[in-house]
Amino acid sequence: MAAYIEPRVLKGFRDFLPSAEIARKDLVEKIEKSFRSFGFVPIDTPVLEYAEILLGKSGGDTEKQVYRFKDHGDRDVALRFDLTVPFARFVAEHRQEIPLPFKRYHIAKVWRGEITQRGRYREFTQCDFDIVGSDNAAADFEILLMMRKTISCLGAGEVAIHLNHRGLFNRFLSRLGVLEKSADILRTVDKLAKIGREETLKLLAESAGAGKAREILNYIEIRGTFDETLEALNAAAVGPGGGFCPEAERLALIRRFMIETGIEGAFTLDPSITRGLDYYTGIVYETFLTDMPELGSVCSGGRYNNLTGLYLKEAVPGVGSSIGIDRLIAGLESLGRLSSRPTYADLAIACTGEKNTGAAQALAEKLRKAGVLCEVFLEEDKLPKQFMLAEKKGIKWIVIPGEDPLKDSFTLRDLVKRENREGVSSDEIRVRFMF
Amino acid sequence: MAAYIEPRVLKGFRDFLPSAEIARKDLVEKIEKSFRSFGFVPIDTPVLEYAEILLGKSGGDTEKQVYRFKDHGDRDVALRFDLTVPFARFVAEHRQEIPLPFKRYHIAKVWRGEITQRGRYREFTQCDFDIVGSDNAAADFEILLMMRKTISCLGAGEVAIHLNHRGLFNRFLSRLGVLEKSADILRTVDKLAKIGREETLKLLAESAGAGKAREILNYIEIRGTFDETLEALNAAAVGPGGGFCPEAERLALIRRFMIETGIEGAFTLDPSITRGLDYYTGIVYETFLTDMPELGSVCSGGRYNNLTGLYLKEAVPGVGSSIGIDRLIAGLESLGRLSSRPTYADLAIACTGEKNTGAAQALAEKLRKAGVLCEVFLEEDKLPKQFMLAEKKGIKWIVIPGEDPLKDSFTLRDLVKRENREGVSSDEIRVRFMF
Repeated sequence: MAAYIEPRVLKGFRDFLPSAEIARKDLVEKIEKSFRSFGFVPIDTPVLEYAEILLGKSGGDTEKQVYRFKDHGDRDVALRFDLTVPFARFVAEHRQEIPLPFKRYHIAKVWRGEITQRGRYREFTQCDFDIVGSDNAAADFEILLMMRKTISCLGAGEVAIHLNHRGLFNRFLSRLGVLEKSADILRTVDKLAKIGREETLKLLAESAGAGKAREILNYIEIRGTFDETLEALNAAAVGPGGGFCPEAERLALIRRFMIETGIEGAFTLDPSITRGLDYYTGIVYETFLTDMPELGSVCSGGRYNNLTGLYLKEAVPGVGSSIGIDRLIAGLESLGRLSSRPTYADLAIACTGEKNTGAAQALAEKLRKAGVLCEVFLEEDKLPKQFMLAEKKGIKWIVIPGEDPLKDSFTLRDLVKRENREGVSSDEIRVRFMF
Repeated sequence: MAAYIEPRVLKGFRDFLPSAEIARKDLVEKIEKSFRSFGFVPIDTPVLEYAEILLGKSGGDTEKQVYRFKDHGDRDVALRFDLTVPFARFVAEHRQEIPLPFKRYHIAKVWRGEITQRGRYREFTQCDFDIVGSDNAAADFEILLMMRKTISCLGAGEVAIHLNHRGLFNRFLSRLGVLEKSADILRTVDKLAKIGREETLKLLAESAGAGKAREILNYIEIRGTFDETLEALNAAAVGPGGGFCPEAERLALIRRFMIETGIEGAFTLDPSITRGLDYYTGIVYETFLTDMPELGSVCSGGRYNNLTGLYLKEAVPGVGSSIGIDRLIAGLESLGRLSSRPTYADLAIACTGEKNTGAAQALAEKLRKAGVLCEVFLEEDKLPKQFMLAEKKGIKWIVIPGEDPLKDSFTLRDLVKRENREGVSSDEIRVRFMF
């Protein structure tokens, strides 16, 4: 009995077949092009790090999910579960080599041993971009501008970016006298859309008492134009008659930059946005597709005051965001806007036997030099079988060499219309496909 | 006492700072462009797999090096140590979804807990390209053509590809009566360049006896033109007066395709090339930079008859190769041909305060739309300090906005020549940098 091993991947892990991988690469290439146009530079860090470094800051949930083990040297190591912690370690370790402000992006896989459910994977790609070493409104604004511009160029249509300020919210909680419950309250508010008003109110009451829970709910439900909302939030934070506090000033300045660049229409000041994570200290934001808000945020982030606190005395402030590539691809697919194709090739050259192999590759090389992407078929099957192979591969055109390999004359077949054109020269093919 | 964690990476692992990561991305982008021009498609597979699947075929050395552990579900899992085994599993698992012949590339990290030494890392990138589902000379030739073309377009200069045929060598060993020692002999021959003639002879004598060791050494030292060498190898394999055996026919046919496409100058038939790995059955090859042969092979591979044997009854033949990206980068660096730059940005826009922030980003957006890569500075430092920051970031030009943000007039500074041009309009800047 032959002992075959069943070929299978681990639960929560995925293979990417060519059409899925090409779709992902297309998206990542557009994102990188946008990041680079802003002068952001790429870095890379190891997949495996000392567990102590990755887990130093994390709470129980992360620790339970992380892939952690002893390596050959009995070192306690772990697979990275996000790109933020490795970036903090990276900035601390290379502090002297990195001119600040430093603008970097990092698109790479991370691993979390989560309960697998619809759309949740144990291996997934994160796409982070951050500016560190600057704590001013210009940096906050640049990240927001990049978010709007980058997501827009991915074919997902218009976006609505919901913006808030953690510091302003905390000022309000402080005035209410419940600042010490801030972490619990922020986490509860973050779940509002998921759990509904009643449940939110109940949980808030547990943290802050029933009366204050009602006030907090009123605060996070403030709606209006950006300026009206900002006025109302500031009033709630500093009390009646006070001037703008620094956090409100910051938001007003960001708003001015938006108007000066004509992008203010994409932004809503939304006090219900808090982000769950503890390390945010300034603006926080989430991004929704106007055509599919129910998808959830496809790009989120915020400002943090002390990225490297675990490793370095020097406090390095930063602001950044992360694009949810998997979610975005799911959204584009649902909207019918994912350009999915199983090949890059513009055309194929049919195989008509050994006597033509050299000539076929020579023709292909001529086309490739002109930028035409050209697959050469390798098996001398009957032509209808080769046409079928081309169709399966998603190739729309096929060139059939003539009898004489030295003669510059080919048949060009349109595999969609199923039409042949005979007596076509290699130059005609080159010109037809090079643009 | 503050308990800082020392920021550091594991031994054998590396951070990639922007200039190193940009150099790597530049190289990978060129490689991918070349692969795509041949109609090759990308796939991706999980970093983590069942240990049983990854290790089924491997001997003791691999097993000792692999990162293997129990996951949360007590599954025996491992980090992939190459891209070939996951590809075999992938082809077996998706056999019905993949039209054959299938041409794929995969550029991704792999992990081996090796003894770290100069140029050896525990985390490194592999770059594999293979054609599976075809066992003919046209497929062998296409991989060789791709190797030559792809390495040539990376700026490393001319390449010399050394080619051999495992089957022809085995036929010779069979005639000598030492075929059953083939694996040991191939591994010894593979080390010739490293260990020298005397040591090779000694090891061969241990496998095959002193007399036959001398004959084997004579065989692997056959030199001459491609055709002369082929004649001599065939004669050694089939005995005097015999015709060409199928393996020699295959090499002759590949040689004909080389001549028909005018690339024969890059290839040497070299009987000392054997490749250490067991699974090769047909042609095998290594690639050397003509300007730096001592670097060792930068692209190696061969033909294998049964990729999926561990998982599937159906034998899927294939031929493929792997570019050693890390070694190639080291070589380019030594040759002074690595275009290393710490940024993609064509220019920076200086920060002259809040009143100019919106206008600076609006100017940047105008330039970005024209394809100019443009970093906006965020800190209102004195100009000389901003010039220094630009230089540290590798940016060669900086635009200094005037006093009035509404006036379309800027100073353009050449940071290399340290020259200013005043009164430049945004259109002039756009046209200057967009080409």
